[in-house]
Amino acid sequence: MALFSRTEFLTRIANTKSAMAHKGIDILMVCDPANMNYLTGYDGWSFYVPQAVLVIDDREEPIWIGRKMDANGARHTAFIKEDNIIGYPEDYIQTDVKHPMNFMGDFIKEKGWAGKSIGVETDAYYYTARSDAELKKSLGRDTLLNGNLLVNWVRIVKSDAEIAMMKQAGLIAENVMATAIDKISAGTRECDAVAAVYQAQVSGTQEFGGDYPSIVPMMPTGEKTSAPHLTWTDEPYVSGQAVNLELAGCRNRYHCPIARTAFIGGTPPEKLQNLADITVEGLNLTLDAIKPGMTGEDVERVWREHIAKKGFEKESRIGYSMGLNYPPDWGEHTASLRPGDKTELVPNMTFHMILGMWMDDFGFECSESFRVTQTGAKTFASFDRKLFVID
Amino acid sequence: MALFSRTEFLTRIANTKSAMAHKGIDILMVCDPANMNYLTGYDGWSFYVPQAVLVIDDREEPIWIGRKMDANGARHTAFIKEDNIIGYPEDYIQTDVKHPMNFMGDFIKEKGWAGKSIGVETDAYYYTARSDAELKKSLGRDTLLNGNLLVNWVRIVKSDAEIAMMKQAGLIAENVMATAIDKISAGTRECDAVAAVYQAQVSGTQEFGGDYPSIVPMMPTGEKTSAPHLTWTDEPYVSGQAVNLELAGCRNRYHCPIARTAFIGGTPPEKLQNLADITVEGLNLTLDAIKPGMTGEDVERVWREHIAKKGFEKESRIGYSMGLNYPPDWGEHTASLRPGDKTELVPNMTFHMILGMWMDDFGFECSESFRVTQTGAKTFASFDRKLFVID
Repeated sequence: MALFSRTEFLTRIANTKSAMAHKGIDILMVCDPANMNYLTGYDGWSFYVPQAVLVIDDREEPIWIGRKMDANGARHTAFIKEDNIIGYPEDYIQTDVKHPMNFMGDFIKEKGWAGKSIGVETDAYYYTARSDAELKKSLGRDTLLNGNLLVNWVRIVKSDAEIAMMKQAGLIAENVMATAIDKISAGTRECDAVAAVYQAQVSGTQEFGGDYPSIVPMMPTGEKTSAPHLTWTDEPYVSGQAVNLELAGCRNRYHCPIARTAFIGGTPPEKLQNLADITVEGLNLTLDAIKPGMTGEDVERVWREHIAKKGFEKESRIGYSMGLNYPPDWGEHTASLRPGDKTELVPNMTFHMILGMWMDDFGFECSESFRVTQTGAKTFASFDRKLFVID
Repeated sequence: MALFSRTEFLTRIANTKSAMAHKGIDILMVCDPANMNYLTGYDGWSFYVPQAVLVIDDREEPIWIGRKMDANGARHTAFIKEDNIIGYPEDYIQTDVKHPMNFMGDFIKEKGWAGKSIGVETDAYYYTARSDAELKKSLGRDTLLNGNLLVNWVRIVKSDAEIAMMKQAGLIAENVMATAIDKISAGTRECDAVAAVYQAQVSGTQEFGGDYPSIVPMMPTGEKTSAPHLTWTDEPYVSGQAVNLELAGCRNRYHCPIARTAFIGGTPPEKLQNLADITVEGLNLTLDAIKPGMTGEDVERVWREHIAKKGFEKESRIGYSMGLNYPPDWGEHTASLRPGDKTELVPNMTFHMILGMWMDDFGFECSESFRVTQTGAKTFASFDRKLFVID
C-alpha cells in the first residue's frame, strides 16, 4: 500500500504536468528512482535494471514500466491501478540484442503516443547513454526534450505528510549519532564502529524502523579526513585524533543527514576547539537568520560574513535541498545554499546545512537538516552542537 | 595504498589494452566504479558525481579524473603516480552551464589526443545520457566507440589475490547468514533482523572487517516473497511463514552472495520441504558437475534436466559472474548460467549460482558463490544447504 494518499499523489502529478506544459513536454519519462517513488509510491531495490514512470499530459495516473518480476513490487507499493503497471519480459535483461528501453519505446508507439513530445531525465544516474540511444532508436527520433530535474524541482517543497516522515528520520538520526559517539573509542576498529551505526540506522526506534540511507556512513579519522569519500577500514581509532561523522537517519526513503566531529582522548588542541566554537556559532546564527523569502545565496552570506570576521573563508556550498532519495546520493540537485543561488525559500523546503571547515592538518564539521517554516528554520534532529570529546 | 601489486594492475591494464585494440579503441573512458577500481585501485563513495579512468593505448598507467576533493582519495587508494591524478574544480558540480564531461573532453584535447579513437561504457550505471552528450560536444564528435562491458569481460577471470579477497568475503557471508537465522523469530521486527545482518556484514570477522555489499539485505516473508526487490518493513516476522534470505559478505568491494530459506515456527509444510529437497539436490549435483571447459549453458542444462525429472521448470537464469562491485549490483553483466550462454568456464572464474523456485503461494531458494578450479567448482562459503527451521 502506498504511504501517501491518492489525493497527495494526484497533486504531485498535477504539479509535474504543469511544469511539463511549461517546457512543452507531453510525456515525461521518469527514471530517477526517487522521482518514480514521488509520483507513484513505488519503492524497491530494482533500479539496477532500467525502469521508468511515464507521466502523460492527458491521463490522470502515471504508468509504471519495469521488469516483470518487479511488477508485484509495484502492486505492493504504488498507488496506481493494475492497468498502469506494465512488466517487460526477462529476455530484455542484460543482453546486447535488445534493451528495456526498446520495450518502452515500442509501448509508447503502440499506445498511439508517438506524436507526443517526449522528455527524459538526461542526467539521472540510471538513465544511461545506451538507454537514451535505444529509446530514440525505438521511437525513431533523433532528439528528445530535456526533462532533467523537472520532478526534483516539483518536490522541493514538501507536503506535511513528507515532513512527518522527515521528523521520524530526525529521531533516528539522533540515535545514530549518539551510537557513533558512544561506540568510537581508541582501539575500536573503524568497521566495528560503522557496524554499530548501521545497526542503529536500520533498527530505528522502538516505535518505527529505519531505512537504508542513500550514502554509507562516513567516519574518517586522521589523515583520511582530507579524503572525504573514503569508506572505513579495519584500523583502530587512535587517541589524539579527531573523527568526522557524516551520518543520516532514513525513514521510508526520507532522510535526515547529520554531521558532527569528535575528538578521541583527552583535551582537544586549542586550534581545533577554536575552530569548533567559531563554526558552531556560525551555524547557530545562520539557522537563526533564516526566514521565508530569503534566497539560497542570502543564507550563505550570513555564514560567510560571520567567518570572514573571524579570519576564515569557505569555498564550497554550505547546504543543499534534500529529502526523498536512493543511492548514490541524498541531495536533490536543485537549490543550494551558495553564492549565485536565487531560489527563494518557502515553508516546507528542506535543506541539509553542512559546515565543514578544513585547515591544512585538522578540520571540524557540524551540520543540521531543517525545514523552512512560516517564521524561520526548524531542525529535524535535536543534538548538541559542539566538538564532542571521547575519553 | 592500493590493495594489489603494481604488477597485477599492469597486467590488468595490458589485458584491457589488448581488448581495446581488438575493437579499435585507442582511449577507453571507464566510468563504471568497479572497473575504475579494477584498473587503478581507486575506492570511494564518490560515484554520485561524474568521474573516470582513462586507459590510453600508448601509456603505461591510466589517468584518474574526478572531483578535486576526491583526488586525495585517489592518492590514498590508487597505485598510479601523482601526475596521473587529475581533479576538476567545484564549479563543474551540479550546474546547468557546465558538466564534468566538458572538463574531461577538454583534457583529452589539451593532451593532443583528439585524433585518437575513443570508447565509452555506454550502459554503465553512472554514464548518463547527458554525460555522453557533453563529452561528444567537448570533443566535437557525433559518435564514440562502444566500450561497454569491455573491462567487465577482462575481469571475469580473477587473480589469486582477488580470490583471496573473495574467500574472506565468504567467511563474512557465513557469519552474516548465521546471524540472520539466529536473529529472525516470530515477533521480531523485520528492521531489527536486517539491522543485525548489517552489523554482521560490516563488522566482519575478528581478523578482518567487512565492506558494504552492493545490494541491501533482502529478507522478505509472506506474500512479499513474490516481490523480490522490496526492502524491509517494521512488521514482525510471523510463525508459519517462510523467509527468503538473499545476503552477502563483502571484503574490499569483493562479494560472496549467499541465499537460504528459513521456515518460522514448527514443521514446514510438506510441499515446501519437498521443494527444498529437490532444489538442494539439484544445487549439489550441478555444483558437482562443473568442470573447466563447460559453457554457461552446459551448467544450466544439468540443473534443468534434474528438475524436469521432478516435474518442475525454471524460467530465469540460474547464475551469473560476480566479484568486485559497487551499488546498485554485484553482478558483472557478463557470463550467465543460462541457455544460449557460450562462455567457456576456466579456472578462477567466479559465479553466484542461485536457485530460486517460486510456486503460486510458496517458494524456496538456495545459492552458492563459487570459483571454477582446475578440476571443478569450489564454494567461497561453507553453510548447510537445507530448509532451515526457526522454532
